[in-house]
Amino acid sequence: MRDVVIIGIGQTPVGEHWEKSLRHLAYGAIRAAMLDAGIEVVDALYVGNMLSGQLAGQEHLGALIADFAGLRGIEAMKVEAACGSGAAALRVGTMAVASGMHEVVLACGVEKMTDTSGDVTTSALATAADQEYEVSQGISFVGLNALLMRRYMYEYGVSHKAFAGFTVNAHRNGANNPNAMFQNPVSESSYLRAGMICDPINLMDSSPVCDGAACVVLAPADRFRGRAKALVLASAVATDSVAIHDRRDPLSLDAVAISSQKAYAEARVMPGDIHLFEVHDAFSIMSALSLEAAGFAARGTGVRMAEEGEIAIGGRLPISTMGGLKARGHPVGATGVYQVVEVVQQLTGSAGANQVKGATLGMAQNIGGSGATVITHILGAV
Amino acid sequence: MRDVVIIGIGQTPVGEHWEKSLRHLAYGAIRAAMLDAGIEVVDALYVGNMLSGQLAGQEHLGALIADFAGLRGIEAMKVEAACGSGAAALRVGTMAVASGMHEVVLACGVEKMTDTSGDVTTSALATAADQEYEVSQGISFVGLNALLMRRYMYEYGVSHKAFAGFTVNAHRNGANNPNAMFQNPVSESSYLRAGMICDPINLMDSSPVCDGAACVVLAPADRFRGRAKALVLASAVATDSVAIHDRRDPLSLDAVAISSQKAYAEARVMPGDIHLFEVHDAFSIMSALSLEAAGFAARGTGVRMAEEGEIAIGGRLPISTMGGLKARGHPVGATGVYQVVEVVQQLTGSAGANQVKGATLGMAQNIGGSGATVITHILGAV
Repeated sequence: MRDVVIIGIGQTPVGEHWEKSLRHLAYGAIRAAMLDAGIEVVDALYVGNMLSGQLAGQEHLGALIADFAGLRGIEAMKVEAACGSGAAALRVGTMAVASGMHEVVLACGVEKMTDTSGDVTTSALATAADQEYEVSQGISFVGLNALLMRRYMYEYGVSHKAFAGFTVNAHRNGANNPNAMFQNPVSESSYLRAGMICDPINLMDSSPVCDGAACVVLAPADRFRGRAKALVLASAVATDSVAIHDRRDPLSLDAVAISSQKAYAEARVMPGDIHLFEVHDAFSIMSALSLEAAGFAARGTGVRMAEEGEIAIGGRLPISTMGGLKARGHPVGATGVYQVVEVVQQLTGSAGANQVKGATLGMAQNIGGSGATVITHILGAV
Repeated sequence: MRDVVIIGIGQTPVGEHWEKSLRHLAYGAIRAAMLDAGIEVVDALYVGNMLSGQLAGQEHLGALIADFAGLRGIEAMKVEAACGSGAAALRVGTMAVASGMHEVVLACGVEKMTDTSGDVTTSALATAADQEYEVSQGISFVGLNALLMRRYMYEYGVSHKAFAGFTVNAHRNGANNPNAMFQNPVSESSYLRAGMICDPINLMDSSPVCDGAACVVLAPADRFRGRAKALVLASAVATDSVAIHDRRDPLSLDAVAISSQKAYAEARVMPGDIHLFEVHDAFSIMSALSLEAAGFAARGTGVRMAEEGEIAIGGRLPISTMGGLKARGHPVGATGVYQVVEVVQQLTGSAGANQVKGATLGMAQNIGGSGATVITHILGAV
């Protein structure tokens, strides 16, 4: 098995791209990544996307985007794992290079969630949950997360205010990221005053509906070490029951634990070695649960890392360093690739005002459903 | 890169499974394949599926099916390449084993197309075509194939009757396959009398809307050679423009040519060495075009192989040996895995009345869209 490195990154700004279709968004990220890598040809393209069939009436994104990006003829396919689709595409790209089947491949995540009515998007997002056991009962995806947050508050006796630090941190970092959807800082009082979406989740607990695309260029370390921007030290996937009621313990994200432990073992590191963590903060409750299951905080204490400022740039474990899903935005099938692009920015000292000093080891964790698919990548500086 | 072998196969009958949901269908195929392989645990599951988001309101099939199959926790994700999704999942599974990242993995194709209204299925299938340049003009997927068939008849001066041999052959073989949707032989006169769907494509030129699941178990040759049922000698993907108008020549399936040539090179064989060919006969025109582009017939002469009986069991190149997409059925995201399961049946002498005598080299080719994604696998007998 060959070691894999990242030799180029690209991203479009996250936002409402009314004037751009899926293929235009993907092209922007692909072209930027190929220019960054200094390459003109690639062997394969793996596209992470969740919603295009439902929202754009377009499946078959592999061939469609390969052709539009000027790469007609190459191997191409789409990979889907709900909101974890981006990292799933990266996972497949890593296998393609590690196996020796390909030399230089692209992993591109793309999603276009606007340009449709809100209820359509809400229904489409609910396909990440279990249709027959959850959605058919009338619950939405935010509703499922609200149940988890309520249970967390009840079981550990924490207030809604305890989660404020996640949002404040994400927006503070997003304010310095020119590609973030929200570049405005948010105060704790603004967080508390935000409109309720699904009690206890309010607007400021929720990542936005948005469009965007991100791309990385993967290549074998043996031939491309001199051009590497980061080393892929671990790539690990784990799953759990999609339906939350069917889990051993709804507040224990077992797939996060398994995926993280596999990744630590593969990279031969401990949680304490990680310099920054791009967490899947689709809702603030997911940040708390992920920090706990990944081994950064004891059970029931994930919120304390936010309350005590440990997650800030300069803190014990900076998270959502470029704004996270909350402020950079969460174009669902693209998010996993954005996270990895941002880790590469940190490891190459290109994170601007959000730079984590001396960062040489970064982790990105992309989640599909409410913890049902968890994909962890650990990257190392060159 | 490690060599990969198939150690187990499973399939459900193809048909209208009104009483079974997606997860039940997949479970049936997975369980059969694991029993066939004599294994109780696997490392990963790659699911090929195209339509579940649109037809069942269910994405996230990787985690969903892994859990339902009793495999909670393992790596799982969905792979999509329109009607080529099944072979795409097999392709990813092959990379997972070849890379050394996993030992024993499942590639499962599953599709449920019934249990909804026909116009919904027709619209969903059209997401394999280019929404912005083709479908938005009002054409359906069968309509695109009808344009290709009309052009073929015009350019080469062949009649509709010239295609009859493909359907007659498929139904003759399907009649001996207990898993086939259609187990009735069809005569040339029945073919000619069939109702018109989209001129010149009639009912007997078309594969059916149906449900089904198929699964293979993949493992490394070095550890599992003694339990191998077939060797994966080649796995190759190529793409073309999704929109047909944008191709160099609509009657030349360039991606079939590239994918086939890559596969022949990888397996170190010539087209003449292949003993049987599971062709993507979604429409009879696709059989003719595929035989030509894959190097089995000269341009414009693919139909002659049907007219002259060369495609029958015992002929020069038996195709659709268990009924093909036309008679076994075409549950779109599952088809690519069914094809490979059937090649394994042939290579292990388990094809019953349809056995190709002395078959040691079989090829399966799964196509997404009208030739936009083409995935070729060549398998060898142990």
